[in-house]
Amino acid sequence: MEPKPPQASFTVLTEMIFPNHANALGTLMGGQLLYWMDVAAAIAAYRHSQRICVTAAVDYVSFRSPIRVGELLTIEAYVTRAFHTSMEVYLKVFAQALPSNEKRLSNEAYYTFVAIDQSGCPIPVPPVVPETEEEKRQYEESLRRREMRLIAAGKLDPAAASTLKLK
Amino acid sequence: MEPKPPQASFTVLTEMIFPNHANALGTLMGGQLLYWMDVAAAIAAYRHSQRICVTAAVDYVSFRSPIRVGELLTIEAYVTRAFHTSMEVYLKVFAQALPSNEKRLSNEAYYTFVAIDQSGCPIPVPPVVPETEEEKRQYEESLRRREMRLIAAGKLDPAAASTLKLK
Amino acid sequence: MEPKPPQASFTVLTEMIFPNHANALGTLMGGQLLYWMDVAAAIAAYRHSQRICVTAAVDYVSFRSPIRVGELLTIEAYVTRAFHTSMEVYLKVFAQALPSNEKRLSNEAYYTFVAIDQSGCPIPVPPVVPETEEEKRQYEESLRRREMRLIAAGKLDPAAASTLKLK
Amino acid sequence: MEPKPPQASFTVLTEMIFPNHANALGTLMGGQLLYWMDVAAAIAAYRHSQRICVTAAVDYVSFRSPIRVGELLTIEAYVTRAFHTSMEVYLKVFAQALPSNEKRLSNEAYYTFVAIDQSGCPIPVPPVVPETEEEKRQYEESLRRREMRLIAAGKLDPAAASTLKLK
Amino acid sequence: MEPKPPQASFTVLTEMIFPNHANALGTLMGGQLLYWMDVAAAIAAYRHSQRICVTAAVDYVSFRSPIRVGELLTIEAYVTRAFHTSMEVYLKVFAQALPSNEKRLSNEAYYTFVAIDQSGCPIPVPPVVPETEEEKRQYEESLRRREMRLIAAGKLDPAAASTLKLK
Amino acid sequence: MEPKPPQASFTVLTEMIFPNHANALGTLMGGQLLYWMDVAAAIAAYRHSQRICVTAAVDYVSFRSPIRVGELLTIEAYVTRAFHTSMEVYLKVFAQALPSNEKRLSNEAYYTFVAIDQSGCPIPVPPVVPETEEEKRQYEESLRRREMRLIAAGKLDPAAASTLKLK
Repeated sequence: MEPKPPQASFTVLTEMIFPNHANALGTLMGGQLLYWMDVAAAIAAYRHSQRICVTAAVDYVSFRSPIRVGELLTIEAYVTRAFHTSMEVYLKVFAQALPSNEKRLSNEAYYTFVAIDQSGCPIPVPPVVPETEEEKRQYEESLRRREMRLIAAGKLDPAAASTLKLK
Repeated sequence: MEPKPPQASFTVLTEMIFPNHANALGTLMGGQLLYWMDVAAAIAAYRHSQRICVTAAVDYVSFRSPIRVGELLTIEAYVTRAFHTSMEVYLKVFAQALPSNEKRLSNEAYYTFVAIDQSGCPIPVPPVVPETEEEKRQYEESLRRREMRLIAAGKLDPAAASTLKLK
Repeated sequence: MEPKPPQASFTVLTEMIFPNHANALGTLMGGQLLYWMDVAAAIAAYRHSQRICVTAAVDYVSFRSPIRVGELLTIEAYVTRAFHTSMEVYLKVFAQALPSNEKRLSNEAYYTFVAIDQSGCPIPVPPVVPETEEEKRQYEESLRRREMRLIAAGKLDPAAASTLKLK
Repeated sequence: MEPKPPQASFTVLTEMIFPNHANALGTLMGGQLLYWMDVAAAIAAYRHSQRICVTAAVDYVSFRSPIRVGELLTIEAYVTRAFHTSMEVYLKVFAQALPSNEKRLSNEAYYTFVAIDQSGCPIPVPPVVPETEEEKRQYEESLRRREMRLIAAGKLDPAAASTLKLK
Repeated sequence: MEPKPPQASFTVLTEMIFPNHANALGTLMGGQLLYWMDVAAAIAAYRHSQRICVTAAVDYVSFRSPIRVGELLTIEAYVTRAFHTSMEVYLKVFAQALPSNEKRLSNEAYYTFVAIDQSGCPIPVPPVVPETEEEKRQYEESLRRREMRLIAAGKLDPAAASTLKLK
Repeated sequence: MEPKPPQASFTVLTEMIFPNHANALGTLMGGQLLYWMDVAAAIAAYRHSQRICVTAAVDYVSFRSPIRVGELLTIEAYVTRAFHTSMEVYLKVFAQALPSNEKRLSNEAYYTFVAIDQSGCPIPVPPVVPETEEEKRQYEESLRRREMRLIAAGKLDPAAASTLKLK
């Protein structure tokens, strides 16, 4: 399979926050944001693999400042690295409020997706060839995040992790 | 503030999976499940703190077997421990399919919520007093998960973590 | 078919009321509540019969105090009695508001469901064996409610009803 | 207050059934139909009273033949009679399927609404003056249905009901 | 195929505007109105052709006064004329606000639909026989609107249009 | 007010088509697409004007090939030109289907928005300074489209239009 640059999976989602998306306080629900991030990441994985993809894991996500009704939300996503049948997707979430309309970074996150065939079985995906500085850094650090996932899942002893010392 | 047992925040959400919740494959979208888990956790935090609560963080979540249209989903949530203004909520997700209707564990996760007052400022919440064996274990291990969160957020060096060795 | 206790079909649905569920007054729409009660009852009938079930009838429902955006809603449902292919489901709806967070009974209702097979034909369901005092009372009184349904549907003359005198 | 004919509140709702409204069998969910009937009845009550109205009660509703994805649904509603601050709304639900496109009666039902003022208090509504034969019959029979409601709510002994014998 | 009068496709949609349909200003979103108009027109085309129909085009639509949460919306639609496999649908949108409850014309629009068979291919539809004065005028003027569509689509030179001079 | 390039309002919306968005045929509803185009255009107008904007008009839109469940949809939007308080927004809609994943142009359209202040009154917006060849062409041709809108709205006699001859 032909390797692909992250640019090939680059995806932008834009949403305006309506009362429909808010809790009783008029702020965007955390769960609604997690939902949109999942859609953005699913599309990036679909573009990279040219396959239907399903969510395999979500790394630690933290929510900083609240996002309010009437603000704009932009989610950028791309595949940082492929691991045989799975892909790590990096997401950056920005919010913008009037009148300044300045973009502020709201969240970063990593979702992992698996490409599947018609019968629902995992299927290999093309490797990723990072091009920019940021893409190369994401590509390198994806190994460390993978070990963090294994530790979180109870499948790896922190002492045995090869990359945690790098930090 | 009067300490409260996890039972006081215990919350059950039940959903039947409709075509409305599924992707093009007829399986529940990861993002929809993350949304429902956020609602369940928000309700548990609301019950513990008697305050409006907002999502502060979501720990690593992994998705095992797909859940299909026509299956039942049950989410159980309770507050494991309070840290001044924040609460850790433990979630267990079960799926059931016909004809056997057997419950299978689909996911476990930890969401962190912060209680806020009318002006949106964090406000202290009651401590948790665990009662059952499981609750006591969750209570103890919450310190280790907290350190994992700090490492994931880049705020703690893994080498300095006091609890990781316990595992 | 093995008889089952009501406990086997016991179902809990919890919802937080968002602007999304409210009318122009910020109160929960009656139709939204009827919708959630239908979902809860459908799940209870599904658990009892281990079959897909469809709504056959809804008894008289009255709506007392309004439920507002920001309140919690809890719906409890279980199958009270089976009549060959149909099941009567009893529903209790509770609302809770901050700061006291006290549970108040909002509604009670009875929905009737029919279990169907793959071709959409009604199919027999297991009998119910009530265990607690409440379950036994519900089981006994279900005959009277059934006659009320037949009167409401114009299929029974009130004078000929055998159970109405019991009351 | 000027009396009004049922024609003044006559309301038509038309919906095409999408996958979005269906259960796992591709048939319209009972709860979705109850929701739309509530909206239609709320609009009829709003038109009669020129006030915001809230659902007070739903009479017995039975569901006959299933309605499928791709069919049309038409709901007709009008206020049959006013009782000081409340209104009884009569609903007729029709379904149509291709290729014949014949309208079949799916449901009939009665919803009761209360008009409220800005502070949420019940407020008197105009009387109804029935004009057609059907409207006059509905107007007369509304007293009997009102007694059925009181019996169902446990507020009236069937033996004391004045209208039940009329049937 | 038997010709049909516009009355055979006449369709009424009524909606109450909820917070769910509004933007951050509490006014109905233009896109939500375009969506409902599409549903109303699709139903009118379905009734005329007794076929599943898909949207082929939307003519110029202008939005006058804003419609607010709590107002009523009524959409009336009928097929004005058929062109082999396509139908032009005329839509009138009315809004009503309390306390006067007067109906004001909010929008007029023309949507074009195509009837399709099971394999998704266009299929001929019955001709329209206008009956009332308004229907006859709509029928006549539909030729001019068709030329406007061809000009808008860049398929017709305005100078060559035969009907534009009629106006 | 400082003039702005179209780049400043450039907006991308990406959606994956779920069963939730489809009609009974499994194809994207025209009305759902019109809704998303309205959201994309509203965001572009918001970015250009740094004001809340409301839909004023939609030009002729034609729908070519059907878009199916499982396909990707990308909408690109930017403000082509400002006319005192209103803005013309140009939209390009692309669809992509597996396995080739090739982008095909699905639609083009022009929506007109008006910026409003807190009291809902129209308020002037910055002029647009086109930079690329396409932007310059859109800027020039916007005058002709404006005349088409006036003709469609019955406010301009086609014979008196100054730009129609240019074509």
